[in-house]
Amino acid sequence: MVVGELAHECDVIIIGGGPGGYHAAIRAAQLGRSVTLVEQDQLGGICLNKGCIPSKILTQSAEKFTSFQEGENWGLEGGGISFNLNKLQQYKQQKIEQLRAGVEALCQANKIEILNGSAFFLSEDKVGVEKGDKFDVFRFRNAIIATGGTPEKPPWARELSELVFDQHSISDLSEIPEKLLIYGSDYIALEIGMAFQALGSKVTMILDDGKEDFDFDQSICRELKRILKKKKIDIVKNSEVLELQHKEDMFTVTFELKGKIETISGTHLFVSTTIRPNTNQLGLSRIGVEQCAAGFIKVDAQSRTTQKHIFAVGDVTEGPALAVKAIKQGKTAAEAIAGIQSQSDFHFIPIVAHTQPPIASAGLTEKEAINMGNDIEIGQFSMSANGFSTLAGKKEGFIKVISCKEKQVLLGIHMVGTGAIELISAGITALEMAARDEDLIFPNYPHPSINEGLLEAVEALRNQAIHIPPKSKNEQKLKV
Amino acid sequence: MVVGELAHECDVIIIGGGPGGYHAAIRAAQLGRSVTLVEQDQLGGICLNKGCIPSKILTQSAEKFTSFQEGENWGLEGGGISFNLNKLQQYKQQKIEQLRAGVEALCQANKIEILNGSAFFLSEDKVGVEKGDKFDVFRFRNAIIATGGTPEKPPWARELSELVFDQHSISDLSEIPEKLLIYGSDYIALEIGMAFQALGSKVTMILDDGKEDFDFDQSICRELKRILKKKKIDIVKNSEVLELQHKEDMFTVTFELKGKIETISGTHLFVSTTIRPNTNQLGLSRIGVEQCAAGFIKVDAQSRTTQKHIFAVGDVTEGPALAVKAIKQGKTAAEAIAGIQSQSDFHFIPIVAHTQPPIASAGLTEKEAINMGNDIEIGQFSMSANGFSTLAGKKEGFIKVISCKEKQVLLGIHMVGTGAIELISAGITALEMAARDEDLIFPNYPHPSINEGLLEAVEALRNQAIHIPPKSKNEQKLKV
Repeated sequence: MVVGELAHECDVIIIGGGPGGYHAAIRAAQLGRSVTLVEQDQLGGICLNKGCIPSKILTQSAEKFTSFQEGENWGLEGGGISFNLNKLQQYKQQKIEQLRAGVEALCQANKIEILNGSAFFLSEDKVGVEKGDKFDVFRFRNAIIATGGTPEKPPWARELSELVFDQHSISDLSEIPEKLLIYGSDYIALEIGMAFQALGSKVTMILDDGKEDFDFDQSICRELKRILKKKKIDIVKNSEVLELQHKEDMFTVTFELKGKIETISGTHLFVSTTIRPNTNQLGLSRIGVEQCAAGFIKVDAQSRTTQKHIFAVGDVTEGPALAVKAIKQGKTAAEAIAGIQSQSDFHFIPIVAHTQPPIASAGLTEKEAINMGNDIEIGQFSMSANGFSTLAGKKEGFIKVISCKEKQVLLGIHMVGTGAIELISAGITALEMAARDEDLIFPNYPHPSINEGLLEAVEALRNQAIHIPPKSKNEQKLKV
Repeated sequence: MVVGELAHECDVIIIGGGPGGYHAAIRAAQLGRSVTLVEQDQLGGICLNKGCIPSKILTQSAEKFTSFQEGENWGLEGGGISFNLNKLQQYKQQKIEQLRAGVEALCQANKIEILNGSAFFLSEDKVGVEKGDKFDVFRFRNAIIATGGTPEKPPWARELSELVFDQHSISDLSEIPEKLLIYGSDYIALEIGMAFQALGSKVTMILDDGKEDFDFDQSICRELKRILKKKKIDIVKNSEVLELQHKEDMFTVTFELKGKIETISGTHLFVSTTIRPNTNQLGLSRIGVEQCAAGFIKVDAQSRTTQKHIFAVGDVTEGPALAVKAIKQGKTAAEAIAGIQSQSDFHFIPIVAHTQPPIASAGLTEKEAINMGNDIEIGQFSMSANGFSTLAGKKEGFIKVISCKEKQVLLGIHMVGTGAIELISAGITALEMAARDEDLIFPNYPHPSINEGLLEAVEALRNQAIHIPPKSKNEQKLKV
């Protein structure tokens, strides 16, 4: 193909309009750059249209349903409540359209040119955009790759791939599963499991890859297992899945557990999969952008690829497949293009789960902190001793802080309990500012509030939490 | 009365078992002091038994009731919900007893001697404790006065005082008022007004003392007025109440407004009153503890009175009548007694309201910042542009940050919207650590979350919030 003078000149071209792409586009426009954003499907990407947003509508609905069932305690009397998934799907559709319209309007207000089509690199400074019969060539000064990723089902599930739900397809489910099998151990698996359990499914979770535990700090894992047991969600751990069958509308998973072959059946199967980067169609080999073995694009803290004028952000790069990462990288890339030396830093990236109760975590887990050679102290406060949690009837969970013994600097904060997701930002701010325990002890906390749980977790580092009974002499001795 | 050798020797005596008193008692015990705690009524004080805790049970219930009414959007279908206040009263009683038992158990575990009775100073080192016919004398090394305060109704309401509800008696209300009149402009007036409106009352708020506005930052006041209008809660401002009458189960308030005499009637009247310190029975004149003109005990940042070995904490001291103040002062007093040089600092005390939506505020308001001579910048982000608020159907509110233009240090954070109370601790931590705007821009915020609203409010200081459309050239010029 000869492009020659037919190429459109453009300043910054961004391939992919998910959170990474559209944040990059708007930030670049704010900084005075002229931006062309190419999206092959819908603005907002997987996150807005199929991932984060729909899943949170599901978890919010499940949380409300549970809350309604507890209403009588609170003087709220009425007929039985039933759940209508179709109605929720309508609500979901409406909210997604509303949010997508918002992103479109913002792009327009920022004078971002939006193209619908598939984009790929023709050379180090040219991108082709294809849409049906139409084909355009853009010569760019800078490019940002924000093409995201695709769930990759494990080998045993590939043959039945169309029938098995993953994190991008589960939001389209049109009925509440009678018996839901979940394969996974991350926040997504937990969110889906707890939401459908609340809405009436019988749920079994098979931890992926033979794992012993969930992907959280060990104390959260312990609390999670207690909570899941109470919810009658079964857990299969340390197992290796061998085979998946689908007969008469039932899935049967065959797995090996402690040397024995066992099976488990369900009406639906959800797999929280690994993410494969969407790079196949990009023509990366033509432009010398390096990828790691698994295909993710290598980037530095400015989101810069091995080609200095080309950037990559989000799920197409290494690291956790989280929108928060894509958003930060997107803004950082745009700033780098504009000559600002900002960097992304994911040491204190929050991992949150909209479970019942929610989980929020940032910084090092206890094991990570020890493995890195830190001499640590642990402060932990049970929300059952928190006034607000008690009055609200939300006594499950705790807040745990991990501190470096020598420097008294906080290393990690792990929360499970109502309000954890909002409260984690206090922890993240503290972690980022290298707060010492006194920096969280000195401030004032509203009373009564779950916030006080964070204070008492930090006070517990000094054995000074007010609502923790004093340790016996023996316990104190053990600590020393 | 001759006491002589009959006095019991004691180390630290604390008069009053509310949040200030019991936090002081436990902290002093943690620090190795021997503590005697005298409470004339019930442990936990007004806060636990009649104030903060019961009021939050009411506001939580109202919030749930509202949420239930919106359930249909979320696929939750069922019969009409009705509200049974008696049932909520049972729940309240149960929770109060549970929390009180917790405080009692903690005091016991900390080997705190609890006495039931009225305490007063006999001399600079002796306290008498009276209970019925029994009278004991305690010779103390240190004393902490934590006797709290009593609502003082305005002069026009005193004659009918028994019939008029205040912040200590409202939680005993046995029916939902048909037409509730509220006199006040603080967080308590707003909580009570919005809660009963949600539960079915027709509510009118008369701002106290002829005020023009509520006790919050001007932007929150503006949003509040919009929200209250939507809820059909009427507001009477700039008025002077002249008279209160009660006839045939109806209250009639007569007030002057712009030179005209008007009246308004309701079935119930709630007054969010000023607090009078409980010092009358203490015999303060005998011990040389100074009080300010309004009767509050003068204390320093260590909660020390003008008698160096006697401390005072909570509502009996000057400053806002908030449990958070009492708690901090209580711990500080105990630490001072133990020789630790800690201090209370209420520059960044959170003011929160469990309204619908909630309000949380810390640091300087816009007006205060300007009046103190600061050259300020304002960043404000509407929660209607926040992804999580949108999907949750909770689009009301905003987050506003006030920053010093020269130093880029945050001076105040004001929030109204779902999750504000939990999120304010991120703001308070930032304020206490003298965070600059970059300290809140650098961290990662979970997506989607209301936390991102805080980030975008700070980004708005630089005109770089992603979800705020760019200002027109004219607006930008105006700013410069």
